[in-house]
Amino acid sequence: MTYCVAIKLNAGLVFLSDSRTNAGLDQISSFRKMMVYEKTGDRFMVLLSAGNLSISQSVREILQVTKLRAHDDEEPITIWNARSMFDVARVLGAAVRRVYERDGEALQRSGVDFNVSMIIGGQILGEGMRLFQVYSAGNFIEATAETPYFQVGESKYGKPVLDRVINPETPLDEAAKCALVSMDSTLKSNLSVGLPLDLVVYEEGQFASDKIVCIDEYNPYFRMVHETWGERLRQVFDSIEDPAWNGGITEVPIRVEPHRNQHLKKITGPDEKLV
Amino acid sequence: MTYCVAIKLNAGLVFLSDSRTNAGLDQISSFRKMMVYEKTGDRFMVLLSAGNLSISQSVREILQVTKLRAHDDEEPITIWNARSMFDVARVLGAAVRRVYERDGEALQRSGVDFNVSMIIGGQILGEGMRLFQVYSAGNFIEATAETPYFQVGESKYGKPVLDRVINPETPLDEAAKCALVSMDSTLKSNLSVGLPLDLVVYEEGQFASDKIVCIDEYNPYFRMVHETWGERLRQVFDSIEDPAWNGGITEVPIRVEPHRNQHLKKITGPDEKLV
Repeated sequence: MTYCVAIKLNAGLVFLSDSRTNAGLDQISSFRKMMVYEKTGDRFMVLLSAGNLSISQSVREILQVTKLRAHDDEEPITIWNARSMFDVARVLGAAVRRVYERDGEALQRSGVDFNVSMIIGGQILGEGMRLFQVYSAGNFIEATAETPYFQVGESKYGKPVLDRVINPETPLDEAAKCALVSMDSTLKSNLSVGLPLDLVVYEEGQFASDKIVCIDEYNPYFRMVHETWGERLRQVFDSIEDPAWNGGITEVPIRVEPHRNQHLKKITGPDEKLV
Repeated sequence: MTYCVAIKLNAGLVFLSDSRTNAGLDQISSFRKMMVYEKTGDRFMVLLSAGNLSISQSVREILQVTKLRAHDDEEPITIWNARSMFDVARVLGAAVRRVYERDGEALQRSGVDFNVSMIIGGQILGEGMRLFQVYSAGNFIEATAETPYFQVGESKYGKPVLDRVINPETPLDEAAKCALVSMDSTLKSNLSVGLPLDLVVYEEGQFASDKIVCIDEYNPYFRMVHETWGERLRQVFDSIEDPAWNGGITEVPIRVEPHRNQHLKKITGPDEKLV
């Protein structure tokens, strides 16, 4: 499987992906799931992908040459000349549909779903940053202030910490830290997600980024996050009082209305037959 | 959906379930997913269920009267006379199969999967505690020291904390606290899981339990866990250093080998056409 997360903040964008790919459990490989498209000073875009690797690689391969028809007198729209991230998402959707036209039927004959999920986000000179999630059908949705992040792949393990920390005002480096903690929880609980990670942090209005890093098991920062988070989480857990049952002295009793539990129990006496 | 978790420790067993049931998003109700079977001094068993509610209710309904054929001269095996939890799991599997025989074909005609996941655990006089997960086909697996817990339903959000805390030596009340934290993370991130919760803590060798509680939003202990965990998690998160990029002074740099990132980037100059 895969885990990718992208976060849109007022201050910028954060993108993080793992690199584990598996076909079943005995065929595990490492493939990068991130691609950065930069035209310095004009546009900066990042693509993350999950799902069937043959599909997502094909989409990535043709993305730069996919064109949307424009008016007669205009150049066709590509990811390199689009005037908005919305148009870039449309081009990506068109690339997904093109791969579907090529492979969809043959995959179906083999009983393989046409399954791909992509995230594309970035900024083009002349508009604000935008972040989109593109589905297998080539349709897409955009992140808003209420839902400032998208996840694809094994998203559930790492969702609670995002829900607790991220909002549009979160500073950029704090959001990068949060994405890494979210990834760490996913790595801990799911074998199909693995190192190395690719991380990009983009600052609003820069149309370029040098905060791009491939994180392996030797990366000092990720090791620190991994160890500190695990250790302190355990300390927090230990610092919370255990439940005190039946007359234990506490300000926070766990049992308050025993009569509510009665219908939960089927009791039969030691000498009875079936009740 | 649903979230249920059961943990087997040396000291005893912990069972926790939510009570949210949904058919789509607009038909949400509250149904308890736990049932306790107790024959004081002889056996104590707890059943948790997830999946299609009509199936799991039917299984629960017939569980007490489901019989496995024994040798000619012996009484048929039921959950109330079985001499081992293994036999109880067999009876539960038989009950699931009976419901399948009754409803499976009609459900299939309506395009509904025969989907049910159950956990049954407890102790019968004469053997140690045992914990089983029973699948839709009526087959089952048993928890071991290496994997001392089972989850059914929306299990992923709450898995990381279980993986970090639970092992067979974990004390019983600490495991109960861990199950509640696991549930709290799930409630936070998934609308289809909801209060009230049912919690049972069983001590090894008691063949009865009075640590059974229905936890609603007013329960002082669960409120404390919810608030403290959220707050301290945030403190731990804040206490971890943010990543320091490109020359920031830190003992744990995030960027170590910039050359590894080169192939991630497609760069095009401002005056170029497509690359």
